[in-house]
Amino acid sequence: MELSAFQGLIRDIYLQRDTQRGLDKTFLWFLEEVGELTRSYRRGEHGKIGSEMADVIAWLVSVANLLDINLESELLKKYPRVCPFCLSTPCTCPFR
Amino acid sequence: MELSAFQGLIRDIYLQRDTQRGLDKTFLWFLEEVGELTRSYRRGEHGKIGSEMADVIAWLVSVANLLDINLESELLKKYPRVCPFCLSTPCTCPFR
Repeated sequence: MELSAFQGLIRDIYLQRDTQRGLDKTFLWFLEEVGELTRSYRRGEHGKIGSEMADVIAWLVSVANLLDINLESELLKKYPRVCPFCLSTPCTCPFR
Repeated sequence: MELSAFQGLIRDIYLQRDTQRGLDKTFLWFLEEVGELTRSYRRGEHGKIGSEMADVIAWLVSVANLLDINLESELLKKYPRVCPFCLSTPCTCPFR
């Protein structure tokens, strides 16, 4: 599925209530999901990590919808099929 | 772009160094990017928020690559074109 299509799907399901909730509270939900993912990761709950990652992305998409940010465009701007720093694939930057 | 294609692109660019860095340190990078996004959001730096969101997704994808998690499958499992709780579009769950 195209990321832009997923963003549209989340818009159709949730934009009305995301708008009603507001930007700050929606951002806090996103951070709460990051916390839940971190807990599953720390605990090594491998069966749950993928589902928590999906929640993190879904709430990030809700924030992007409220800010009118097209995530697919932002990803392609930042990662145009090469590392944005060394411009190579695979990346040849100094190791960090 | 398909999310699975973006995951493959990040794999091609970064899997080798993500593997060398290891899972814990890669997860910490993801959390650092969440912190940078939160700072840009708090400061109202609207020109930077989209780019910070791209970094959050890219590092989440790196973690998923190391764990062999297919993010597109996880998203479609969790959000099969309707709200996973009330099974409607738009969502009709009690407001939260």
